[in-house]
Amino acid sequence: MTDIPDPSPELLQRALAVRRSALALGQSSDGQRCEAVQAMAAALEADGAAILAANQRDLAAAVADGLAPALVARLKLDPPKLAAAIAGVRQVASLADPLGRRQLHTELDQGLVLERISVPLGVLGVIFEARPDAVMQIASLAIRSGNGALLKGGREAIHSCEAILAALHRGLATTSIEPQALALLTSRQESLAMLKLDGLVDLIIPRGSNDLVRFIQDNTRIPVLGHADGICHLYVDQAADPEQALRLALDSKIQYPAACNAIETLLVHRQIAPSFLPAAIEAFAAAGVELRGDAAACALGVPHAAQDQDWRTEYSDLILSVRVVDDLEMALEHIASYGSRHTDAIATTDPLAADRFLAAVDSAGVYLNCSTRFADGFRYGFGAEVGISTQTLPPRGPVGLEGLVTYRYRLRGEGHIAADYARGVRQFSHRPLPL
Amino acid sequence: MTDIPDPSPELLQRALAVRRSALALGQSSDGQRCEAVQAMAAALEADGAAILAANQRDLAAAVADGLAPALVARLKLDPPKLAAAIAGVRQVASLADPLGRRQLHTELDQGLVLERISVPLGVLGVIFEARPDAVMQIASLAIRSGNGALLKGGREAIHSCEAILAALHRGLATTSIEPQALALLTSRQESLAMLKLDGLVDLIIPRGSNDLVRFIQDNTRIPVLGHADGICHLYVDQAADPEQALRLALDSKIQYPAACNAIETLLVHRQIAPSFLPAAIEAFAAAGVELRGDAAACALGVPHAAQDQDWRTEYSDLILSVRVVDDLEMALEHIASYGSRHTDAIATTDPLAADRFLAAVDSAGVYLNCSTRFADGFRYGFGAEVGISTQTLPPRGPVGLEGLVTYRYRLRGEGHIAADYARGVRQFSHRPLPL
Repeated sequence: MTDIPDPSPELLQRALAVRRSALALGQSSDGQRCEAVQAMAAALEADGAAILAANQRDLAAAVADGLAPALVARLKLDPPKLAAAIAGVRQVASLADPLGRRQLHTELDQGLVLERISVPLGVLGVIFEARPDAVMQIASLAIRSGNGALLKGGREAIHSCEAILAALHRGLATTSIEPQALALLTSRQESLAMLKLDGLVDLIIPRGSNDLVRFIQDNTRIPVLGHADGICHLYVDQAADPEQALRLALDSKIQYPAACNAIETLLVHRQIAPSFLPAAIEAFAAAGVELRGDAAACALGVPHAAQDQDWRTEYSDLILSVRVVDDLEMALEHIASYGSRHTDAIATTDPLAADRFLAAVDSAGVYLNCSTRFADGFRYGFGAEVGISTQTLPPRGPVGLEGLVTYRYRLRGEGHIAADYARGVRQFSHRPLPL
Repeated sequence: MTDIPDPSPELLQRALAVRRSALALGQSSDGQRCEAVQAMAAALEADGAAILAANQRDLAAAVADGLAPALVARLKLDPPKLAAAIAGVRQVASLADPLGRRQLHTELDQGLVLERISVPLGVLGVIFEARPDAVMQIASLAIRSGNGALLKGGREAIHSCEAILAALHRGLATTSIEPQALALLTSRQESLAMLKLDGLVDLIIPRGSNDLVRFIQDNTRIPVLGHADGICHLYVDQAADPEQALRLALDSKIQYPAACNAIETLLVHRQIAPSFLPAAIEAFAAAGVELRGDAAACALGVPHAAQDQDWRTEYSDLILSVRVVDDLEMALEHIASYGSRHTDAIATTDPLAADRFLAAVDSAGVYLNCSTRFADGFRYGFGAEVGISTQTLPPRGPVGLEGLVTYRYRLRGEGHIAADYARGVRQFSHRPLPL
């Protein structure tokens, strides 16, 4: 286990400054926060040339270091990608305010009124892969939701991140929101030490590998928003429409195989397997997907044999395991045993099978006759996404602005004391009031 | 650091049985769960003599071991206390069902409809102090909310807990809910090993000392519902009604000093201190409360000098620290520096000061002109309480049944695939539908 360094006095000072600015930010109005996000977008536009130049420095270093082409592609900012990211920032400004919503309103007794109001979490600690566009997105989501943020980008993106943060700070400086609400961490030591900033950081959002998420969960007392695995299933029921089921299977696997909401395992009912699998095998082969099957699937033509480990593997690649199951219950059993409670789908025309599946599968997303690839904040209509959580507690599944807020109880009285109720002098009314 | 033992095969088996029963329980109807809780109450009544006898064994051992009288009092069950606990169980049956609530309903596109539905968390891991009545309460809350539970009572209550669990199992056996949904852990080894049951346990609820809560947070990847500290404040503003403020201060401190929602520090505005403090000092002395003040408070008659450590201390006793502050901002600064974000109150007749306080204090409960002692699930009208959470993320503050549920997204389509939207062949409508 890596030793987690204690935060340096300088980091503590910086985190404290973020927290204090965040406290003020949390009391700003909807209009002030929208204006701030728009000013951030304008500053990114104005600093576009500097940001692209900084990104060129990062890219040159990455190529010299022999960074994998896929990672270089993620690192790269060009004018269209920057413009799209800035448009994304502007879109965050247009999202509905998640703050100040009254979630509960109760008269506890005459003159004693309880409210529950949505408020920001406080300070987010975000750890990124080397993706400069993600920094812009998360920073805008943080400000829109009234939260400060400590941002740590991948080290390959350091110059890009510094240029972006400089622009964001310049933008915020023209508004009523304090620029110190956003701070960049630049060293690995700092991002490790951040894990010890409980009391100053309210939520850690790791965006990266499963190993990174697990490492962070194991090394901090701060709540972590992340997903450890995306082992998603499509179950093709006996009563599936075979053509539709194949279309769903292909889309769920190949539309973006590296995504966490792509399927890793296809479960096929024994009755439909002989008619369904041969066409599926052909279609997947044409799409370049390697299939690994259990004995029954292999007997029907799946070329490779699956090992037990396959059912537990997130391939994130053009590989799919295939298992023939006796019935719906065996499919449910398989998903309960091997799934990661991310997103699982059934293809069926049988309403009873559909209802059973939708009730029994204990995942963040349970789907009927549609692709697992819809598990996404944009597709759900949230406008933007912080990430997808496979934790059981809310926020669960795709997390939008709503996942960055908490609530606070406000109680207004006229000198009410608890002893009067304990003595029976007064009684609670608990009368619901309009929200 | 204590070594956390790996779960024994036997514990894993038991936890797996709880999880499987919980999965079935989570799909039961409102009526089935109400019936189950009523059957639990009836069985506790029927087994009353056996439970009281078992409690006598625990009490005899506790007295022989020289257990502190306050702990013996908590351990003790007598017929009225048992009857009250059973009445509490019946009341849980009468609470509104927290499951199956549709929280979101959106048409993503024609024929593609998204819902968000409240569902149980799964399995709760609850660690108690030696309070047999708490076991009955938590067990009934778990079943009512569709959750299985692993319950670990304080070792001094072992016979009481076994008798209670036997009754609960007998009660459940007469219903459609599987008795295995509730399991008792009896050894410290088992309760430590439970911390490693991620994947089988969804939420740990420690009910006990702050040290216990922190130890658990540091030693598990499972989310923990607990509060670490209750350092609550009452700020007596310049514009306070002095008589009302004194009544609030007394109630907030002495109505139940061991409670986490009792105040530990009284902040008094410099302008009102000379008139307010002398009467307050007299009243607190009469109530047996030891006051510890800063220099200004001591100059006005507070008998003991407070050290810096006092502002950070949860006394849980008849001790109160008193500080004179220059203004509201200094009070806010004090609360931000020393508070635990539990519950803080202002006494004032000035609406501007009230609004500033209610907006600026970042605690789970922020109160105006009422006692901090109202921070409680029963008083808030939740009907029952799992505990009070000082975490920032929801559930925050007093946690009722609603804190024991999460949600699941259900998406029903007619063969919809993501590629059609990526290619622009189809567009999302994101049309809100009625809840």
